[in-house]
Amino acid sequence: MPGAPANACLTVPAQRLGTGGRSAVHDALAAEEPLELRLHTPADPLPLAVLMRTPGHDRELIGGWLLSEGLLPAELSLSPDDENPNVWHLHTPEWERLAAGARLGVSSSACGVCGTGSIERLAVRAGPLPVSGPPLPWPLLAGLPQQLQAAQPLFRDTGGVHAAGLFTAAGELLAAFEDVGRHNATDKVLGWALRQRLDRSALVLCVSSRAGFEIVQKAVMAGVPVVVAVGAASSLAVDTAQAFGLTLCAFVRQGRVTVYSGAERLELPDALP
Amino acid sequence: MPGAPANACLTVPAQRLGTGGRSAVHDALAAEEPLELRLHTPADPLPLAVLMRTPGHDRELIGGWLLSEGLLPAELSLSPDDENPNVWHLHTPEWERLAAGARLGVSSSACGVCGTGSIERLAVRAGPLPVSGPPLPWPLLAGLPQQLQAAQPLFRDTGGVHAAGLFTAAGELLAAFEDVGRHNATDKVLGWALRQRLDRSALVLCVSSRAGFEIVQKAVMAGVPVVVAVGAASSLAVDTAQAFGLTLCAFVRQGRVTVYSGAERLELPDALP
Repeated sequence: MPGAPANACLTVPAQRLGTGGRSAVHDALAAEEPLELRLHTPADPLPLAVLMRTPGHDRELIGGWLLSEGLLPAELSLSPDDENPNVWHLHTPEWERLAAGARLGVSSSACGVCGTGSIERLAVRAGPLPVSGPPLPWPLLAGLPQQLQAAQPLFRDTGGVHAAGLFTAAGELLAAFEDVGRHNATDKVLGWALRQRLDRSALVLCVSSRAGFEIVQKAVMAGVPVVVAVGAASSLAVDTAQAFGLTLCAFVRQGRVTVYSGAERLELPDALP
Repeated sequence: MPGAPANACLTVPAQRLGTGGRSAVHDALAAEEPLELRLHTPADPLPLAVLMRTPGHDRELIGGWLLSEGLLPAELSLSPDDENPNVWHLHTPEWERLAAGARLGVSSSACGVCGTGSIERLAVRAGPLPVSGPPLPWPLLAGLPQQLQAAQPLFRDTGGVHAAGLFTAAGELLAAFEDVGRHNATDKVLGWALRQRLDRSALVLCVSSRAGFEIVQKAVMAGVPVVVAVGAASSLAVDTAQAFGLTLCAFVRQGRVTVYSGAERLELPDALP
């Protein structure tokens, strides 16, 4: 499983006041740096996106972001800049389609007219998620956040990042990524699955954070049918999960869960053991 | 103080499993809807931004967003669409400058080249924050998150939103706003202060979330010199706070604090009482 890169954590001098009194400390911080994705066109290169992210696993981040935004080309070449590690170059024969997508505005998947519009926009690019395989038993589901937490070294050091992990239907953690942005952590793990050419239709996405529209949208675009969130869901996340038949579980902590959609993929007991 | 609007919370049917066993419940969710800000130009209106936000206090949100992004015009007229409450119309004689800012890309304040570039870009529009007034005593600072929490009715109902509040130097809470996005909550409260024409140079911004680059950037642009976060700070948030002389306090909870910058505005005891 991929680990946290060396430059994901920085140490700075700080003053800390706590039960031990006031002290000068060297405090560990999660690194936050902008990544610029430059789309090469026959004219000037076009900045396709600026992502404020924790450095590391940039290739996975970019792949997952392109996938989530519906911009992933069939053929592409991605290379880091020779001089600046925060700049990535994207060459693709489909540059016109990507440039048009970027010109649509701030987020190509959210539509300003209303939540329903955002779901309709997503439906142009993604279909309903199939129900396949046996339902996930409750004890397996309940244990995913703890498994994810064990794969969060950067959180242990900094307390300042979210994580996203992909699990098999048997509850095996395949990969987990951490980032200052929960959407980036999700893009990284989905981009990782894309590069590994995994069948994503049997996987479970677990996030240490809340599940808003963007998290559910990314799962839908990636074809991952189950989302498990430690935090709350938003109204539009629930509407989107229902529209695409995605299983959405929130508040999965301390032996509890709230299921908003797709309960047919779960095997929930009537009472806790 | 402004309260949460009626449409900020929605109820949906869900299944809940917990210590009481499995039950069908009506679960309260934080509303998430896209807001589209349309800039009117002599040609077609231009979508300036799509903000995924909790509905309510849209005027404050838009004002705070324009301020944070360095796009606030001296003269403007802002009106909701007659038919769609998620669409807002912005008319300003400065439309050319705003349109150019929007064309720059995803976020006008983050620069893709590097973190230093983002700070330099911010420095074009904002100067160092002055130190004025007596330092904030520790007991006052330590109590801000609890005061903020008491002003978070939507969090109590949904567990799914962040809050941002503005306090006077005497620790009085002036206003607090909640939103599915921590950046939106911050924009709303800063936009509120803008509309109230408050002197922001003596105020304290308290956020229930972590403090990343965007939160510090918004405080810098609004001229608020102290940021108090319940969660962690990121590396770029600390660099930005240091560059502008902003006081940045993170992990302010359970009688603790870590101060990364601007300690001269605080009066910290050597040991806890």
